[in-house]
Amino acid sequence: MTRPQLVEQIFSRKSYLCVGLDTDLTKIPAHLQSHPDAIFEFNRQIIDATLEHCVAYKINTAFYEAYGLKGWEAMERTAAYIPDTHFKIADAKRGDIGNTSAQYAKAFFETMNFDAITVAPYMGEDSVRPFLEYEDKWTILLGLTSNKGAHDFELQKITILPSSTDLEYKEIALDPTTTRSEYLYERVLRTASGWGTPDNLMFVVGATQAEEFTNIRNLTPNAFYLVPGVGAQGGSLREISEKALIKDCGLLVNVSRGIIYASDGLDFAEEAKTIAAQYHMEMQQFLNHLTHEEKSIP
Amino acid sequence: MTRPQLVEQIFSRKSYLCVGLDTDLTKIPAHLQSHPDAIFEFNRQIIDATLEHCVAYKINTAFYEAYGLKGWEAMERTAAYIPDTHFKIADAKRGDIGNTSAQYAKAFFETMNFDAITVAPYMGEDSVRPFLEYEDKWTILLGLTSNKGAHDFELQKITILPSSTDLEYKEIALDPTTTRSEYLYERVLRTASGWGTPDNLMFVVGATQAEEFTNIRNLTPNAFYLVPGVGAQGGSLREISEKALIKDCGLLVNVSRGIIYASDGLDFAEEAKTIAAQYHMEMQQFLNHLTHEEKSIP
Repeated sequence: MTRPQLVEQIFSRKSYLCVGLDTDLTKIPAHLQSHPDAIFEFNRQIIDATLEHCVAYKINTAFYEAYGLKGWEAMERTAAYIPDTHFKIADAKRGDIGNTSAQYAKAFFETMNFDAITVAPYMGEDSVRPFLEYEDKWTILLGLTSNKGAHDFELQKITILPSSTDLEYKEIALDPTTTRSEYLYERVLRTASGWGTPDNLMFVVGATQAEEFTNIRNLTPNAFYLVPGVGAQGGSLREISEKALIKDCGLLVNVSRGIIYASDGLDFAEEAKTIAAQYHMEMQQFLNHLTHEEKSIP
Repeated sequence: MTRPQLVEQIFSRKSYLCVGLDTDLTKIPAHLQSHPDAIFEFNRQIIDATLEHCVAYKINTAFYEAYGLKGWEAMERTAAYIPDTHFKIADAKRGDIGNTSAQYAKAFFETMNFDAITVAPYMGEDSVRPFLEYEDKWTILLGLTSNKGAHDFELQKITILPSSTDLEYKEIALDPTTTRSEYLYERVLRTASGWGTPDNLMFVVGATQAEEFTNIRNLTPNAFYLVPGVGAQGGSLREISEKALIKDCGLLVNVSRGIIYASDGLDFAEEAKTIAAQYHMEMQQFLNHLTHEEKSIP
C-alpha cells in the first residue's frame, strides 16, 4: 500500500485506528477455547466487527510464535483474511545483518503479504536496508518506545561531535561551547530518515512519550508514526493527536488489549466494536479539526 | 544447559565451535532440492557430520520464516533433532515490551526447547527481563555486531554524565575536565551486566570487531560471548581467541556459511565436516595453550 492509498483510507473512513491482534489463548473467551482453530476464529470475529472503524491491523508475531506451528498457521491465515483495504502490519521487531534481514523481508513481504514490518535499529543501516528495498512496502523503525526501558538506551545522551566519524578517538576533549548532545532515539530518527523516505519509512513512537512528540514532529515533519501505548499502557489519544497530526494525518494509533479484550464473554466481538467505534469517533473529531484548520489557511 | 554443563562440553570436546544453520533452499545441493523436507534433511546431515567437532548449533530463524509454515516446521524439527549434549541457540534477535517478550520467551524456551536466544537491547531492561527469568536458559544480548551498520549507533558516543539519570535536562553544560564518554555498545554491556549474571547472560560480539575485544573483555571479564563473523564475514579466529578466551573458555565462535556451504555437491556433509574439523583443531590448540597457562600459575 502506498502513502496516497493509506491516506485515502484514513480520510475516507475518518479513522487512523490500528487494531492490535495480540491474541493470547489464555485471554480469549471461554466459549472459543475448545474451537479447533481458536486463535484464527477469535481474530476473524474481531476483524469482522472492527473493520469499519479502523484502517490497519497489527499482528504481534510473538503471540503466534508462542504456540509454535499452530500459532504460525493462525498468523498466516489471519494475515490472509485481512482485506486489502486495510494496512497490514507485522509487529515483529526484526533486524539482523543484511543477508538475514533479507530473509525476514521475504518472510513478511512475500511469503505473507504484509504492507509493513516493525524493525529494530540497533544494528544500523545495512540491517534495515533490505526491508526498504521492497516497492510499496513499509519499514516501521523503532524510535522512542512506550515502555519503561526506553530510559535505558533510547533516552540516553549521544554526543554530537564536530567530527563524529572519528571513531578511533575515544577520549575526546569536549569543548563546552561547541559540544551538543541528543538522545539516542533522536539520533536514530535523524540518521534513519536518510535511509528511506516518508513514503516507505515510518517510526514507532510510544503514546506514553507525549512530552517528546512536539520534538519528534520537528525532527521528522513528514513521517508517519505508528503509536502504540494508548489504552492498557496509559497514553492519551488527544495529546498525541494534537501534537503529531499533520496535513495528511501522519499517524496510526494502535490499540490492542483495550479493544480485543474489551469483554471475555460471548459479546467479545460486539464489545470490541463498541470500543473501536469510540476511538473512531474521537479520531473523526481530530481529523475534522485538521480539515478545518487546512481550510482556514487562505 | 547451565554454565558448568556448557563448559564441561567445551573442555571434554576441546571445541568452542558453534555451527550456524542459516539454511537457504537456494543454496543447498541440487540433489536435495526435490526432497519433500529439504531444509530439515539438509540440517540433519550437517548435524550428523559436525556433531563431534562443535558444542553448539545456532538456528537463524529468518531463514526458516522465509518459507512460512513449512520453514517453521523445519525449524522445530531441527531444534528437536539437535541432541541435548549440544547448546541450542535460537538466533532470533527478538525484543519487545515485557508482555510481548514473555511470549517470545515462551516460544523459544518452552514450545521449542532452545537453551538460548539472541535478543536486541534497544528497548531496555523490561524488554530483556522475561528471557532472563527462565532457569537454566540463556539470553544472548547484542553487544557489538559484525556488520558495517555497527558504526551507525553501536559505535556512537554516549555521554557519561555526572548525573545521568537527569533525563529532563537536555541542553547539558559539559565540563571538559569531568565529562567522559563511551560507545553505545559499551553502555549496553555495562548496563545489561546488571540485569543478569555471567551464568544466564551472554553477549554477541562480532569477530570483525577484534580491535575492541580487549576492551570488551575488560568490561565483562566473566561473560561468555557468542562470536559470529568468522569465515564469510572475515573475522580471525586466532585474534579473537587470543584476546577473549578466559579460564573456562567464555567463547562460542559461530561459523555458518563457511561450514554448511563448504560444498554444494553430493559431498556437502563430508565437506562441512572437514571444515568444522579444521576449526576444531585450531580451537584445541588455543584451549590447550589456555590449560598450559593455567598450569603454570603456581
